[in-house]
Amino acid sequence: MPVLDTITGPRDLRTLSEDDLTQLAAEIRDVMIRTVATNTGHLGPNLGVVELTLAVHRVFDSPRDKIVFDTGHQSYVHKLVTGRSADFGTLRREGGLSGYPSQAESEHDLVENSHASTALSYADGLAKAYAVRGEDRHVVAVIGDGALTGGMAWEALNNIAIQHDSRLVIVVNDNGRSYTPTIGGLATALTSLRTNPRYEHVLDIVKRRLTAVPGVGAAAYDALHAMKKGLKDALAPQGLFEDLGLKYVGPVDGHDRAAMEQTLAQAKRFGGPVIVHAITRKGFGYDPAERHEADQFHSPGPFDVQTGAEKPKGPIWTDHFAEHIVTIGERRPDVVAITAAMMHPVGLDKFQARFPERTFDVGIAEQHAATSAAGLAMGGLHPVFAVYATFLNRAFDQVLMDVALHKCGVTFVLDRSGVTGDDGASHNGMWDMSLLQVVPGLRLAAPRDATRMRELLDEAVEVADAPTVVRYPKGPPPADIEAIGKAGGCDVLVREGARDVLVVAVGSMAEIAVDVARRLVDQGVGVTVVDPRWVKPVDPALVELAGTHRRVVTIEDNGVVGGVGAVLLQTLAEAGVRTPVKLHGIPQQFLDHAKRAAILERIGLTPSAIALGILHDISAETAPEGRALHDVDGTR
Amino acid sequence: MPVLDTITGPRDLRTLSEDDLTQLAAEIRDVMIRTVATNTGHLGPNLGVVELTLAVHRVFDSPRDKIVFDTGHQSYVHKLVTGRSADFGTLRREGGLSGYPSQAESEHDLVENSHASTALSYADGLAKAYAVRGEDRHVVAVIGDGALTGGMAWEALNNIAIQHDSRLVIVVNDNGRSYTPTIGGLATALTSLRTNPRYEHVLDIVKRRLTAVPGVGAAAYDALHAMKKGLKDALAPQGLFEDLGLKYVGPVDGHDRAAMEQTLAQAKRFGGPVIVHAITRKGFGYDPAERHEADQFHSPGPFDVQTGAEKPKGPIWTDHFAEHIVTIGERRPDVVAITAAMMHPVGLDKFQARFPERTFDVGIAEQHAATSAAGLAMGGLHPVFAVYATFLNRAFDQVLMDVALHKCGVTFVLDRSGVTGDDGASHNGMWDMSLLQVVPGLRLAAPRDATRMRELLDEAVEVADAPTVVRYPKGPPPADIEAIGKAGGCDVLVREGARDVLVVAVGSMAEIAVDVARRLVDQGVGVTVVDPRWVKPVDPALVELAGTHRRVVTIEDNGVVGGVGAVLLQTLAEAGVRTPVKLHGIPQQFLDHAKRAAILERIGLTPSAIALGILHDISAETAPEGRALHDVDGTR
Repeated sequence: MPVLDTITGPRDLRTLSEDDLTQLAAEIRDVMIRTVATNTGHLGPNLGVVELTLAVHRVFDSPRDKIVFDTGHQSYVHKLVTGRSADFGTLRREGGLSGYPSQAESEHDLVENSHASTALSYADGLAKAYAVRGEDRHVVAVIGDGALTGGMAWEALNNIAIQHDSRLVIVVNDNGRSYTPTIGGLATALTSLRTNPRYEHVLDIVKRRLTAVPGVGAAAYDALHAMKKGLKDALAPQGLFEDLGLKYVGPVDGHDRAAMEQTLAQAKRFGGPVIVHAITRKGFGYDPAERHEADQFHSPGPFDVQTGAEKPKGPIWTDHFAEHIVTIGERRPDVVAITAAMMHPVGLDKFQARFPERTFDVGIAEQHAATSAAGLAMGGLHPVFAVYATFLNRAFDQVLMDVALHKCGVTFVLDRSGVTGDDGASHNGMWDMSLLQVVPGLRLAAPRDATRMRELLDEAVEVADAPTVVRYPKGPPPADIEAIGKAGGCDVLVREGARDVLVVAVGSMAEIAVDVARRLVDQGVGVTVVDPRWVKPVDPALVELAGTHRRVVTIEDNGVVGGVGAVLLQTLAEAGVRTPVKLHGIPQQFLDHAKRAAILERIGLTPSAIALGILHDISAETAPEGRALHDVDGTR
Repeated sequence: MPVLDTITGPRDLRTLSEDDLTQLAAEIRDVMIRTVATNTGHLGPNLGVVELTLAVHRVFDSPRDKIVFDTGHQSYVHKLVTGRSADFGTLRREGGLSGYPSQAESEHDLVENSHASTALSYADGLAKAYAVRGEDRHVVAVIGDGALTGGMAWEALNNIAIQHDSRLVIVVNDNGRSYTPTIGGLATALTSLRTNPRYEHVLDIVKRRLTAVPGVGAAAYDALHAMKKGLKDALAPQGLFEDLGLKYVGPVDGHDRAAMEQTLAQAKRFGGPVIVHAITRKGFGYDPAERHEADQFHSPGPFDVQTGAEKPKGPIWTDHFAEHIVTIGERRPDVVAITAAMMHPVGLDKFQARFPERTFDVGIAEQHAATSAAGLAMGGLHPVFAVYATFLNRAFDQVLMDVALHKCGVTFVLDRSGVTGDDGASHNGMWDMSLLQVVPGLRLAAPRDATRMRELLDEAVEVADAPTVVRYPKGPPPADIEAIGKAGGCDVLVREGARDVLVVAVGSMAEIAVDVARRLVDQGVGVTVVDPRWVKPVDPALVELAGTHRRVVTIEDNGVVGGVGAVLLQTLAEAGVRTPVKLHGIPQQFLDHAKRAAILERIGLTPSAIALGILHDISAETAPEGRALHDVDGTR
């Protein structure tokens, strides 16, 4: 019987023999590899924290003690040992286990947000709460070295350092990598801690020099011994963390479970905040992952367990961007690129290879990315910051105050916008088209296909006095949808029959909009479908078109509150255009994980649901004659 | 003739004698004190950087070299020596000099944003741009120790540390204070740098111990001397900054201009990024400021130059909050308070005095404030984070993902919301009621007067499973406006005549709305004025009221795009209510500094302008009969 099957909760871990624990670690790796090979998910990070997680759960008493995983995608091991191994095959499937901690799944889970660098702030709050309430609980935060490059982590450390009595243990899971190798001065500092505790080095120098002086010898050695403690005291408070006043323990081999436990137990006894510096290797224990140079199977697509070979897949939006930004770079020597620790995922790897001196990886630091982009623009360049849409929320204030207020020509490329699905609530890029509406001067483009993405990107980098945004979703783009005409700056995609319905198709929703139109035309309803291309500011041609149609329908892959449709509605009201407007977008709620298609179905963003709604509205208006509603789902 | 009158630009500073420079510093202090005494503004911070700024301008060559002031409010000295001394009397007046750097004012100004901790990111971007373009310019960032507690500064330092060739000089203006004393581990680290360079200390220990050993004496001393360099090498790379790999110079007395110049010149020659650690005193050179315990005249109201006595003023919104939060604290032992380095300005000083163990100053760290609040809530407490509305933008992602997604009961109190005026574009709190609309579950209250603020705060802290927000403006609240009835959760303030117009009065705009109503009633128009109290979610009673009136007018002190009115419009469209809605709010643009009243006038948020607009719309609809439009400005 596998050891894993005997683990119903963390307490079961404490009675296992060494052999059983070793066996368990192997079983955990095996089940994670097999599951992710088919379900997809985060593999490399979880392979790197098997022993570390077992040690944490053997030393601390969850859920009484609270364990907070930063970024959350390295919580698979934690899930497996907290009663969820039987369900692990449902990982990331609709209705199954989330790829992140989930309070609904387990009392051992706390923080569900996938955005990096939050764990220390949560932990500080928890520890303060227990202090105020007089509860004797420990809080353990597990955070990667990459996440420490995020400003929030610094803000938290600065606070934790003065909570002298808080029972807070910070496990720095140092694998030297964010998604890709961690950058910056922090990485340097960690390396120096990792490789050579300084006071030993200094004692060595002192010893060598002294014994080299004739006539000093033993006496000096004694003196040295006597002052060793003094020296240690003077020198030991060294390194980044101890400069802040934080107790530091380590480095310790994160794959040596026993050593980890010993160190954690020591940290637990300390009675104040402690940093435990654990050195791990991403992908540890699975050859194909360890050998995988780009990212140690950070988050692979489906792959073959034996060989590690990933199943081939067609080009996604990112690939089209990756190619085109190089073309722009060739033409425009002033264009520079910025990534927040995701060079390959956002498609800047080719640009970096071609223009290394014009490519900047700033770490997991979206705020700095935006404001340093403003600085780059003030210095005469045109920066392109490519980032997942959801992570731009981190830099909203910087986009507004540092870029827009200063009229800087900076282009933001938002990948993974709209419903992304599998990764759960905090990965959906459903906020940008609402938030950015309030930014004065900002221009926002939503391309409907790869050709339009290239066009709009070309237009965006020509804007020198305002921020521009180009946003597109996860996955492959649809086949190109050619325009049949223009209306102002908008592309007209369909114009059939009477002016019954104007469908405003935002970005990648154009494919659905054209399908909706087909269904309406089949029912004898006249339809115009228009793609605004630039959705902010509102094109005056849209207002005019709205005025000449009997109803307007907007379709966008963004939260429906305050989005493109809402601002169009507001613009029409302001202009006195009274045409009824129906908005289709993502309801303003956090979306549980599932495949993108399943979510779109669930929230009614499908051609049949939208067409049915329009026909229903028309028939309600023209009742009692009505129209036949059958056939609208296209299955006749 | 005053020396200051001879300074037309920074170059003129370089030919002055020592005596002239000393005289100039005195003149600068004098003019700043006299100007701020009447115009108001930031005094303490500017008094602290007189010599520092002169030194920077004598060593570097602005505008060829770029000088970036963090937070910007300490740029008065810079303004005075860059050709603006003749205009200094117009400081912060409409059409006059801004209280912050302003590109429109001078080629020596760059960063206008008043939000803290941005300077290093700008500087990193500028320095990278000059490197890419092959331009030999220096970039100087002047940043306070307080601003270093903000996460952005950390993100920037982490990046700057690996730009080994960048010509970037970071002047840390260390006065030990943010608004109030700087908190956290960073303050500890700075103090240790400030007071006792460690290697000298260690050498001392070594020397003392060695000479105390009989028979060692001189030989050991020689050995010590020989190894001094080795020890220095081993020990000197110490302290926070050098752990990151940043060259550190200091500490230097920031009021010793010659020493500052020498150090800056050394830093300029270095050829890589350098931190210059300058120790200054906020309020230096003006007795009343130096003696002012709370904040060294950080930003006083009008005061008497001789005595420093501030003119008395009536209670502002903040004072009412300050009192009431203590009352809540008495009743609710689980309520804790958080400030981001602004204990007194946001009115938490009384709460802190009463409940020191339940009050947390987290530094200039809004992100950490929000997420640690989530942690506090998870730990069983109810945190109240009081912050200026504009600064909450920094923590949008944290409010959304860390607080709302996790259904944490955290109350955000947004002071200085709406048009604040004098401090310019980046201080206006005009974004919150748009941004926060997209946050699922969040409830937002806008009290119309002090009584409602107390009521709504009481209601807010009762919500345990979602974030709540209470927002109110700068200055004194209006006299209480009593309700004449209820409609759902809304207060009805006016109900006169027919149902011609429904005026939705958001928060502090109620006073204006009642005035508008009076003007309309005088013209025979029937009016209902309703205050929703909770503006998010939309009260169903509002939708019903809108359906029974002929037109709806919303008035809010927030950006008009995506604000309360816009979401009401969207809700009505969704509900099929076709009543026309006219939105009044702040146009979506950055507002130049002026008095609040002047700005409201400029943007049409006055009773007469709004009433006139409504009458105009009514008359356009009922033309040709029309209505008389005279008398509407209330001056008959």
